[in-house]
Amino acid sequence: MSSALVVFSGGQDSTTCLGWAKNRYEHVETVTFDYQQKHSIEIEQAKKIAEILKVPNYIFIIDIFTQLADSALLDVNKDQDINASHHSKPNLPASFVPNRNAIFFAIAHAYAQKQGLEHIITGINQTDYSGYPDCREPFVKSLEMSLNMGSESNIVFKYPLIDLTKAETFKMAKDEGVLDLVIEESHTCYNGDRSLKHDWGYGCGNCPACVLRKKGWNEYSWL
Amino acid sequence: MSSALVVFSGGQDSTTCLGWAKNRYEHVETVTFDYQQKHSIEIEQAKKIAEILKVPNYIFIIDIFTQLADSALLDVNKDQDINASHHSKPNLPASFVPNRNAIFFAIAHAYAQKQGLEHIITGINQTDYSGYPDCREPFVKSLEMSLNMGSESNIVFKYPLIDLTKAETFKMAKDEGVLDLVIEESHTCYNGDRSLKHDWGYGCGNCPACVLRKKGWNEYSWL
Repeated sequence: MSSALVVFSGGQDSTTCLGWAKNRYEHVETVTFDYQQKHSIEIEQAKKIAEILKVPNYIFIIDIFTQLADSALLDVNKDQDINASHHSKPNLPASFVPNRNAIFFAIAHAYAQKQGLEHIITGINQTDYSGYPDCREPFVKSLEMSLNMGSESNIVFKYPLIDLTKAETFKMAKDEGVLDLVIEESHTCYNGDRSLKHDWGYGCGNCPACVLRKKGWNEYSWL
Repeated sequence: MSSALVVFSGGQDSTTCLGWAKNRYEHVETVTFDYQQKHSIEIEQAKKIAEILKVPNYIFIIDIFTQLADSALLDVNKDQDINASHHSKPNLPASFVPNRNAIFFAIAHAYAQKQGLEHIITGINQTDYSGYPDCREPFVKSLEMSLNMGSESNIVFKYPLIDLTKAETFKMAKDEGVLDLVIEESHTCYNGDRSLKHDWGYGCGNCPACVLRKKGWNEYSWL
């Protein structure tokens, strides 16, 4: 395997993927999406981690989702409760942004074509019960085929965390030599909190992302 | 059939689709992508046609492609020859923008979710030998499945022009009662020329889009 593009948010999962990719590919690049998330801290951490690991990091600025204005994860809907159900899809969480991964992956795939990169690595994961249908393996496999068909490409999506629990993701970070980086620099907290330090990293400790990370850390200590 | 979203560029094909949709659906909306095309005249004509036909028109402003900066159809590459081969994909035309339709359709699909629209109508067409792999039926069918899978939706893509020649598209415009609108207001010319009026509409008469439209018109007169 020679070249890969890591879809890199600066969170625990994609930081682990970046470590994994660095150990397997000759050439690794990263792409980050600035889509006016509630907290720009995620982007700052992504830049910082890419610098530490000495990989190119390209940031796409995407205001499609603010134009769609349909989700609690966006700045424009700041007052919406992040823990509630999605307003137009009651079976999905409020944080669901329609077609978010489809749009991100289509852009990453175009960028990989431009840069001549063979694989795209994403940290998507279908075990954390987040309820996002665009984080499941059949979706990514289907989209991979669609995008390759539409561009006469042959780019392969890899998702090393797809069936891992958060505890196993901590273990993979350890095995790939990036556990300290994950703890110190990766950011996951939905509330953008980096004032509180815990064993498992920084965050408010109460939002769904922090609860999941904390639970994963506790289980990891038993692995 | 009750509601539809027409992906509407203001060109001949999507204007014909809009006429087709207006005659078949109770409720029709349109979405237009302003992606910093070489000529904003297309967007102006799209707005004007939507007004004439009294359908809502939502314009998404998308600067992804300028960020990808990889195609002759974009303003940033103004000096590039529109008739040449694509610089990184020699078997595709220079005007090929990687994943353009994948990105447009993913956004249109998200917008259809938001607006509660059941069908998405696009004017894509696989008969004009333009060499765009993202204008072929298997691609759209595959992407439709991917997008629905990733969002737990059941939105259907329709492409009434998929197998029509340009001559047959003129005939459809006639049958659907929008031929005059197509001639007078739709814009196709790659060079953004609306100073020259022909039987078949406005345009430079020499770019690949004008040549195709003119040829179609001549063949239509024999149908």
